[in-house]
Amino acid sequence: MIAFLTWWKKKPELKTVEPFKTVLSGDREAMAKFTMKDLEMILAATLSGMSVDEFNVEARKWLETASDPRWKRLYTELIYQPMVEVLRYLRDNGYKTYIVTGGGQDFVRVYSERVYGIPPEQVVGTAGGTKFEYGKDGKPFLTKEPKLLLNDNNAGKPEGIHLMVGRRPYAAFGNSTGDREMLEWTGAGAGARLMMLLLHDDAIREYAYGPAAGLPDSKVGTFTPELYDEAKKKNWTVISMKNDWKRIFSF
Amino acid sequence: MIAFLTWWKKKPELKTVEPFKTVLSGDREAMAKFTMKDLEMILAATLSGMSVDEFNVEARKWLETASDPRWKRLYTELIYQPMVEVLRYLRDNGYKTYIVTGGGQDFVRVYSERVYGIPPEQVVGTAGGTKFEYGKDGKPFLTKEPKLLLNDNNAGKPEGIHLMVGRRPYAAFGNSTGDREMLEWTGAGAGARLMMLLLHDDAIREYAYGPAAGLPDSKVGTFTPELYDEAKKKNWTVISMKNDWKRIFSF
Repeated sequence: MIAFLTWWKKKPELKTVEPFKTVLSGDREAMAKFTMKDLEMILAATLSGMSVDEFNVEARKWLETASDPRWKRLYTELIYQPMVEVLRYLRDNGYKTYIVTGGGQDFVRVYSERVYGIPPEQVVGTAGGTKFEYGKDGKPFLTKEPKLLLNDNNAGKPEGIHLMVGRRPYAAFGNSTGDREMLEWTGAGAGARLMMLLLHDDAIREYAYGPAAGLPDSKVGTFTPELYDEAKKKNWTVISMKNDWKRIFSF
Repeated sequence: MIAFLTWWKKKPELKTVEPFKTVLSGDREAMAKFTMKDLEMILAATLSGMSVDEFNVEARKWLETASDPRWKRLYTELIYQPMVEVLRYLRDNGYKTYIVTGGGQDFVRVYSERVYGIPPEQVVGTAGGTKFEYGKDGKPFLTKEPKLLLNDNNAGKPEGIHLMVGRRPYAAFGNSTGDREMLEWTGAGAGARLMMLLLHDDAIREYAYGPAAGLPDSKVGTFTPELYDEAKKKNWTVISMKNDWKRIFSF
């Protein structure tokens, strides 16, 4: 959701209108509930007509300076050390690793390789269409279109994995209700499959949110009691950030 | 286009109606001109409501027995030896190889690994949406939807590569006008890029069609004089099947 860059500086009149108001509120729970129509409105207002190359330049520029106000670190430095380790461990053992995110596919692709060792083609995210056009010099380029092809949240995650990968994962990791369907679909495969959910229960070192397990019903993220119960019932592993992670960030 | 299996046995009334009539005519040139609407009609009439798993079973079954009337070989045996060799050569030198096809993505994925050594996630093709649902036993599955996400022909090829891969190819190979935009987009990248077009000019050992280079204007495929001229002008390599290929098929 940090992919919308600085559009509101150019179009201030949108600041008080939905779904733009929600984007600026930073309420991730509300944003995860955006419909295809909401996302298409955002896409149309913010990125349409921008070339793919321009978008990449803008995104790179933004990532070079944008930092988190609490940690005073670049967003690309705020990555979990255990996540980096498990990705490396899986790759060392012959697995291909993917990021499957509700975030913008083109945006995450800009930093995925450098930050997680995951190349652009192994990022599945919320994706819009593009249009092939020719410049005045006859050189072709791709422009971002207002048409949304994939809303990669909830049921959109397994659907997106099918579209982009075409096979079922052997292991899936999540940390919110938006990952439920992806874990269900992974678990429905034959043979051994690994499903893991990270519970953010460490307000001191990071954040604590539920409302599962008596944790605060925060706007940072959502991990419902229903998801927690399903995980326990289906023998998915629930990782406690507080108790199971010796180190949180990679920096 | 062989992905439509045996739908016409179930819905004979469609045989005389467009775009179904064209599909059954085997006129590949006409099929390459299908609009998104034509393809959505075909998708809706033939595959919608079928689960992804059922589709894979059907496709595998069909491929086990379907053979070409002229060569009397399974379609999966009718692959070009030089194509197999160049794919292997590129992979041995650190390149990741993809199939980018106007054919159905889910269909080509069924045999791409076995036949070309290309895994499902490296197939970019014409793709419809899917829907995540639960069976009566609570087990989730994906169903094929009548919504088309990508018409992977012409401009749809670079658009599809951007969606599925997110970077520009270093080398691109084609054999018809449907590949033009993909080669143009490849060639527009910085540094050295390789663009190659195969001219089917060998009626004895395979097929001959143009209308480029005075070859017959056949229904098997289309290679226009405009494409030929563009290739010459832009220094793309045009391969003559007749003169440059010692061996054609792998069998």
